[in-house]
Amino acid sequence: MSLIDKLEWRYATKKFDPKKKLSAEQLDNLLTAIQLAPSAHGLQSYKVLVIEDPEIREQLREAAYGQPQLTQASHVLIFASYTTIDGEFVNDFIGNVAKIREVGIEHLEAYRQSITGFVDRLAEDQKITWSHKQAYIALGVLLTAAAEMGVDACPMEGFAAGKFDEILGLKEKGLTATVMATVGFRAADDEFSKLIKVRRVKEELFIHV
Amino acid sequence: MSLIDKLEWRYATKKFDPKKKLSAEQLDNLLTAIQLAPSAHGLQSYKVLVIEDPEIREQLREAAYGQPQLTQASHVLIFASYTTIDGEFVNDFIGNVAKIREVGIEHLEAYRQSITGFVDRLAEDQKITWSHKQAYIALGVLLTAAAEMGVDACPMEGFAAGKFDEILGLKEKGLTATVMATVGFRAADDEFSKLIKVRRVKEELFIHV
Repeated sequence: MSLIDKLEWRYATKKFDPKKKLSAEQLDNLLTAIQLAPSAHGLQSYKVLVIEDPEIREQLREAAYGQPQLTQASHVLIFASYTTIDGEFVNDFIGNVAKIREVGIEHLEAYRQSITGFVDRLAEDQKITWSHKQAYIALGVLLTAAAEMGVDACPMEGFAAGKFDEILGLKEKGLTATVMATVGFRAADDEFSKLIKVRRVKEELFIHV
Repeated sequence: MSLIDKLEWRYATKKFDPKKKLSAEQLDNLLTAIQLAPSAHGLQSYKVLVIEDPEIREQLREAAYGQPQLTQASHVLIFASYTTIDGEFVNDFIGNVAKIREVGIEHLEAYRQSITGFVDRLAEDQKITWSHKQAYIALGVLLTAAAEMGVDACPMEGFAAGKFDEILGLKEKGLTATVMATVGFRAADDEFSKLIKVRRVKEELFIHV
């Protein structure tokens, strides 16, 4: 099956089979795909919570309008964006670049300044929006990787972020819940798996110039 | 090569080989991946401009701070979000659902109302942010699909959106440039292809609960 066939196969799974769990290898592959997802300047301005704890998942489900995927899927993956992205955040990133590429930090000064300059030019609300968007790139990578592996997933925006932050203690960590995906395997009787996928035809979606 | 290996292989290509063009099939596969990308409620609140015209690309390059990918890559793909997402937009979507799934529009009334309700509850600025985020999911899908196919890509946020809108006549189409990717094949001497990828270690990126 080509990747295109797999993207046809995937759908936003509404009903997971609660008995089917991802193998450790499958989960690790999904997390590696997230880890490798691109982000602006490579800053990865988010963390990802991997939730298995059943009690926490009950609480999250309540804060997500009762959506059953929260407790029935194999795992819940929550993208949580950093709430403060400043010079220190950039310095940490540059420190990581220096370490991984084995280059003296003094050689990265122009690089550091260009990223700090970019970040500083954003107003606070622009910065939040920009940071959240990066998590959405990673979400797109995750959903594609899941499809490629034959793992079902449901991207989900419908939850009370403030309540998620409370339940998961995110505020204290300088994070806020941004978007999530539940992952696992579809129930045999999920009616939504039988619906024909609705997409705009190419003539309507693309403009060739 | 596994998808993970391919995600390791990819990088934000800074220097494309201007002589290497995507085949018609490669381009079509990338566009199909974008077409199949998930979006909230399936609304696909964007169009994608596929730019080949060399003169337009010169103009876009200028409005993108001179970045060479704009003229050297095989194709420029620009995600442009709809600026008005209202009841009529939702009605069009529901019309498409009815057509594709061959179901009477009267059976989709509750569905239509739930999406319209969601859209109407968003303040204008929230709606814009939300709509742009959907394009970022599609960007993530595109970048993953490109890597899977061995096609190089560079996601790019650094451009003057207002100027892009002018050059491409987007305002008249009810659209605004959101984010883009240049796609093609890396130049043999792109120094950036030789750099070690910098990502946070898993212990730092993921929180297991």
